[in-house]
Amino acid sequence: MTKKTLNAPMNAPADGVRTSELASRLGGELIGSGDVFVTNVSSLAEADEAEIAFIASPQYLKQWPDSRASAVLVDRTLHSDLPSDPRPAILVDNVELATAELLRIFAPVEPSWDVGIHASACVDPTSEIAPSARIGPNVVVGPRCRIEDDVVLHPGVCVYAGSRIGPRTALHSGVVIRSRCAIGADVIIHQNASIGADGFGYRPTSDGSGLVKMPHNGRVVIEDRVEIGASTCVDRGKFGDTTIGFGTKVDNLVQIAHNCRIGRHCVIAGGTALAGSVVLEDWVMLGGQVGIIEHARIGRGAKIGAQAGVGRDVPPGGEQTGSPADDAHAVLRQIAALRKLPRLMKRLSSQPGRAGKGDASQGRSTRD
Amino acid sequence: MTKKTLNAPMNAPADGVRTSELASRLGGELIGSGDVFVTNVSSLAEADEAEIAFIASPQYLKQWPDSRASAVLVDRTLHSDLPSDPRPAILVDNVELATAELLRIFAPVEPSWDVGIHASACVDPTSEIAPSARIGPNVVVGPRCRIEDDVVLHPGVCVYAGSRIGPRTALHSGVVIRSRCAIGADVIIHQNASIGADGFGYRPTSDGSGLVKMPHNGRVVIEDRVEIGASTCVDRGKFGDTTIGFGTKVDNLVQIAHNCRIGRHCVIAGGTALAGSVVLEDWVMLGGQVGIIEHARIGRGAKIGAQAGVGRDVPPGGEQTGSPADDAHAVLRQIAALRKLPRLMKRLSSQPGRAGKGDASQGRSTRD
Amino acid sequence: MTKKTLNAPMNAPADGVRTSELASRLGGELIGSGDVFVTNVSSLAEADEAEIAFIASPQYLKQWPDSRASAVLVDRTLHSDLPSDPRPAILVDNVELATAELLRIFAPVEPSWDVGIHASACVDPTSEIAPSARIGPNVVVGPRCRIEDDVVLHPGVCVYAGSRIGPRTALHSGVVIRSRCAIGADVIIHQNASIGADGFGYRPTSDGSGLVKMPHNGRVVIEDRVEIGASTCVDRGKFGDTTIGFGTKVDNLVQIAHNCRIGRHCVIAGGTALAGSVVLEDWVMLGGQVGIIEHARIGRGAKIGAQAGVGRDVPPGGEQTGSPADDAHAVLRQIAALRKLPRLMKRLSSQPGRAGKGDASQGRSTRD
Repeated sequence: MTKKTLNAPMNAPADGVRTSELASRLGGELIGSGDVFVTNVSSLAEADEAEIAFIASPQYLKQWPDSRASAVLVDRTLHSDLPSDPRPAILVDNVELATAELLRIFAPVEPSWDVGIHASACVDPTSEIAPSARIGPNVVVGPRCRIEDDVVLHPGVCVYAGSRIGPRTALHSGVVIRSRCAIGADVIIHQNASIGADGFGYRPTSDGSGLVKMPHNGRVVIEDRVEIGASTCVDRGKFGDTTIGFGTKVDNLVQIAHNCRIGRHCVIAGGTALAGSVVLEDWVMLGGQVGIIEHARIGRGAKIGAQAGVGRDVPPGGEQTGSPADDAHAVLRQIAALRKLPRLMKRLSSQPGRAGKGDASQGRSTRD
Repeated sequence: MTKKTLNAPMNAPADGVRTSELASRLGGELIGSGDVFVTNVSSLAEADEAEIAFIASPQYLKQWPDSRASAVLVDRTLHSDLPSDPRPAILVDNVELATAELLRIFAPVEPSWDVGIHASACVDPTSEIAPSARIGPNVVVGPRCRIEDDVVLHPGVCVYAGSRIGPRTALHSGVVIRSRCAIGADVIIHQNASIGADGFGYRPTSDGSGLVKMPHNGRVVIEDRVEIGASTCVDRGKFGDTTIGFGTKVDNLVQIAHNCRIGRHCVIAGGTALAGSVVLEDWVMLGGQVGIIEHARIGRGAKIGAQAGVGRDVPPGGEQTGSPADDAHAVLRQIAALRKLPRLMKRLSSQPGRAGKGDASQGRSTRD
Repeated sequence: MTKKTLNAPMNAPADGVRTSELASRLGGELIGSGDVFVTNVSSLAEADEAEIAFIASPQYLKQWPDSRASAVLVDRTLHSDLPSDPRPAILVDNVELATAELLRIFAPVEPSWDVGIHASACVDPTSEIAPSARIGPNVVVGPRCRIEDDVVLHPGVCVYAGSRIGPRTALHSGVVIRSRCAIGADVIIHQNASIGADGFGYRPTSDGSGLVKMPHNGRVVIEDRVEIGASTCVDRGKFGDTTIGFGTKVDNLVQIAHNCRIGRHCVIAGGTALAGSVVLEDWVMLGGQVGIIEHARIGRGAKIGAQAGVGRDVPPGGEQTGSPADDAHAVLRQIAALRKLPRLMKRLSSQPGRAGKGDASQGRSTRD
């Protein structure tokens, strides 16, 4: 299968962008010809002719002579080690950020829905829709909502009553925003994410015959520049709100329960589940499939390893892993020790007079 | 950000509810003025003026003098310890249930879709829709369905052929009910939940060249008063049905595989996955991200801790945790022991003649 | 509750199928009457009269006399041990595959949408829709797509620009296919699955003040005969594509991150999460809730146990479990040893002169 599709127009011109222009747009230093046309960015191994590859760390330098790429982006500090080659190189301070910029330059055009409200959309007359917003087919917007400038609501999005969607925010197909939620500016929410469902809280009836649902009157508040993955769920608060801070990124299939307060610039990987009222301070990173117990507070900059089960507060800067989670270095030592344990037990049980298969008193009596 | 939205009308009157009326509606005993107007319920720490806070356990008593709340709900047995204060208190037997009632009294009005079938909905003429049902925009109902009294189908819900939705049940946007499912009365299913997809079953072809899909001809049957979270999936049975019993509550992002039989009044927290044909007896509680192996039976009232991996039956009343799961107390002892293991190993390895780094025979030869 | 619904027509005739015809369709050998009419297939325990049950392994043989079934499907090698009975038996080489065929014969009719494009669907005029395709209510197809022969798009499916949906593929309600994805032939994608969302990748800004989104210009490519579960998410690649190979089956609520390359005939159970650029070679089996670290390669035919956390490559044919994952037999020995560890520690600590509660030097000094 080819990795190209015939019918995907690019943001860049079809015949490509000159290396001189790329160097200029990346703020980089051009070594070699500025007249090579580049049509895409790829890895050294996968690049075709007319593509630019990139080298961010020394171990990739030796792949450059064999790459089919027509140009290369290189970390400035690695240039002296780059195998000599007639093809142009662009030197930059931060290859990863420059690569992100190249990906933007060469991104295929994503067609969007027309400005305005599609004929099949159903918008309550009490809601305000900015004239620049794009309201796609089959979108439903309930009463008293505010959809601000340049918002894109992809097909089938549903916004219940009284919610606000901030400027330039994009909600992909199948996103459901329940009542009275506030979504900031420049937010991206991927398809089928669920914002504002009721929190999960019940109490036994006084006679113990069943369970009473706790109503959840709070909201979900998502600040600017947040990104939320596909099929992720953010439940509304009970009294107060569930909040996600500026710039935080949440992957797919994440559960954020009622009254969680997520700080700024956090990164939460896929499959993670936060119980009710969890607090993440700023810059927390959670690996995939992490679980955090209700009311735990994770300190600023803490890093939690994949599949960890966090049962109590984590201090700022803490690095934890394991289930139950503990200091990552301690857990690694425990795992190493556990791997040797079967052999240790076998040895001890083969030593008469040692704590082996027999019970403790037998052990002692033989030894003494 | 304020926690109020300007445009959310409340079920309660705008100027609030008198403490005398609240006491009466909660069946509580009023101490102090009955003429204070209350507009909302919140925690002691977060409450504003004109709000009522609540105290369910002794450690919160000392926060009452500093709370800005205008009234307080207190467990009757704690009243004698409540710091003296001119503000009114309402004494009740069960603060949590009374708080649930306060949340209902002060809930914002959730606007619903009009009674009847929205013009954009697509309902097969062979289906019966109760006149009191609310069928929202872009809802699709296939042939031979029965949608009963006071059902609410929010925008974009899709019900395939031959399913029944019982009285007063609400399906939120994006819920998909596949063919021939039976949903009871007073059920709530949150957005983007998937009911009745095919179970996950395949068999190798006779020549081993691929996999054959096992058809799943059974149904999903959900009894009355069940609540199901956003993006939760309940697969249909192979021969018989997948069933969820009366009053059971299921959180977001839960997987319930084909032919599971879930009892009454169970509570299943987010991220949990039940393999095929798992049985939960009544009143089982599962923590978040639990996994249960196929065909396991979890006895009545058992409690399974978060992230546990249950590989065999659990007796009634059992409390298990860990992966693989075991008796919770035993697992706690194992974890405590594991945490000391690296130190123990270091010690043993530093003892010549003990089971250390060398192999068992060396150990013995040195010792003997 | 009865397991039948009154209004579900069957593919088979209402009065059933003769045992002689069943034997013929299954390529089996009929013992006894060929004139018994069978209306359904079920287990020995659950079967009613006029149903056929099945026996694939010896322990079920003794249930046959008490079953209410009117006929039985039996593994040919077990026939001599089948309790003698006047009811007909059909002997086959592979009971599971024959049962799959019976389930197909007795499957209820699943009504589908009419051939053609439903009046409420919104299809861009630049897209090609095969005349035999069924485009259901409220479906949206963006520009430059190709929807091939006999495709079924259930209500509310959304296909963004430039995607191809191959022959006979069915996308259930709420499935969202983002731009430029390629879905093969005979694929089934269950409801609310999300294909082609952006991968989860960010880099710190050069001043450390925030996070920069890495654009994801690649695609998702799903080959023929793949099945994907409800609410499963498959993210698009960064440069190249995320690919799922021929015949692979993915359960519900699975996360497949950007640039994963999944081989042919893999089986991935529910709740599993693959990080970016994971490679599964052919015939890999992953249990439920497995997590795999980015860039790991899982060798052909490897089997990973439920809840395993795979932190490095797994060799072909490897069987691993645990978190962190390791050879399954080694992990079982570790678990067995861990269960004895608390007792061992207690013993050692009760032996003066052994490495117990005291520190190592104390231990030694007492002993020596």
